[in-house]
Amino acid sequence: MKLAISGKGGVGKTTFAALLIRALDADGKQVLAIDADPDANLAAAVGIPAGRDMVPIAQMKELVAERTGAQPGNIGGYFKLNPRVDDLPESLSACLNNIKVMRLGGVQKGGSGCICPESTLLRALIRHVVLARDEVVVMDMEAGIEHLGRGTAKNVDKLIVVVEPGRRSIDTAVHIRQLAGEIDLKNIFVVGNKIRSSKDEDFLKKHLSGFQFLGFLPYDPQLIEADLEGVSPFDAQTEAKAVVSGMLKKIEQH
Amino acid sequence: MKLAISGKGGVGKTTFAALLIRALDADGKQVLAIDADPDANLAAAVGIPAGRDMVPIAQMKELVAERTGAQPGNIGGYFKLNPRVDDLPESLSACLNNIKVMRLGGVQKGGSGCICPESTLLRALIRHVVLARDEVVVMDMEAGIEHLGRGTAKNVDKLIVVVEPGRRSIDTAVHIRQLAGEIDLKNIFVVGNKIRSSKDEDFLKKHLSGFQFLGFLPYDPQLIEADLEGVSPFDAQTEAKAVVSGMLKKIEQH
Repeated sequence: MKLAISGKGGVGKTTFAALLIRALDADGKQVLAIDADPDANLAAAVGIPAGRDMVPIAQMKELVAERTGAQPGNIGGYFKLNPRVDDLPESLSACLNNIKVMRLGGVQKGGSGCICPESTLLRALIRHVVLARDEVVVMDMEAGIEHLGRGTAKNVDKLIVVVEPGRRSIDTAVHIRQLAGEIDLKNIFVVGNKIRSSKDEDFLKKHLSGFQFLGFLPYDPQLIEADLEGVSPFDAQTEAKAVVSGMLKKIEQH
Repeated sequence: MKLAISGKGGVGKTTFAALLIRALDADGKQVLAIDADPDANLAAAVGIPAGRDMVPIAQMKELVAERTGAQPGNIGGYFKLNPRVDDLPESLSACLNNIKVMRLGGVQKGGSGCICPESTLLRALIRHVVLARDEVVVMDMEAGIEHLGRGTAKNVDKLIVVVEPGRRSIDTAVHIRQLAGEIDLKNIFVVGNKIRSSKDEDFLKKHLSGFQFLGFLPYDPQLIEADLEGVSPFDAQTEAKAVVSGMLKKIEQH
């Protein structure tokens, strides 16, 4: 099973991804977790404190140069568009139980055909983990889904968009659906986060009426406290853990 | 006065920027507001409902082609590195009172010398508004400050980083300071947002001890309600308005 998680910055993508990954692990699954949001730290959220210091692969200049043949700082030079990446999940992951976490860093966005060695390496790696790995793959992505090409996208089983009660998170969800449509990624679910009351749920259902909802997570100060204390949301006293386990069953059934 | 606002996605950059812009306007200043965060909508937050439908300049393919001479979809072709932009603030802004808002969209990030026509146009525009305009300029930027080159940065009077009680917003603030250092942008202030108690303030002060704090904004459900109702935070019943007006005095004195 290959899952991609997206949504506006700050809505709780990484918290949700960490809860889902730990729930899969508790279920006995092998999980390959991909941190593709330069603004997040999935390894720390999963509960690997050393993950805080992981260098994103996009910033490993020597690795990027070695694998792509690119000369750093060289504009418009030649480099391999299909670099070797199959050994990287083993050699560049932080581990906990049955979970491997890889930290990718940022990829170049959109633009009129702009291609860089770093983003070529990251996209090759994403293609590899989606197409060729046996583990359950969970990808924590940015507000867009620029890491996914068309060939990769059709092997992503589900795209889960996290939203909060707020207009811009809704705008982002609509934009992500549009991008997903362009690469034929159709199986999209929404998770409502930071829900304070049924009014918040109604607001999201009303403004995202064309979307399929996976469920809702409550606004929970315990999750903020856990973050401040450097504790994984899965190890905190929170209702969210049970809610996400329920969502996982729904994901597996669909 | 030229101000840049940055911080992790979701911390409240745009809410703070909108409050600051409206406070400047109420003070009788001419303001040029730059929305450089593809995940935000500054015009709507300022209180221009039609701003919701503004097309970001980075997505105006014909304009980009006309000004840079680039052929859309052409990889590695030639284009102008110094396109004309001085007429754009007048022709491509949404207006309210003394405020003009321009929506830029995303710029290509980092990478090993990757340059695209869109980002060339956006950077030229930012350079123009920072170096050549008389208005007070307020820029709502992404988690990074990639829009700023070294020559532009030295004319930015203050970089304000918005943080919330959360580890990743702190990581982002530290990262932004590092990026700022690389382009000699030194006058950095921090605004703490979504503060629930003095404990939250203490957490931020402890983890950002090397930073200068401009002040703290309370966690305020009224701001969420205003957003859900499509009302500018400046037009909501909220303490934040007075707090930001106080911060503005501090900014002007420094």
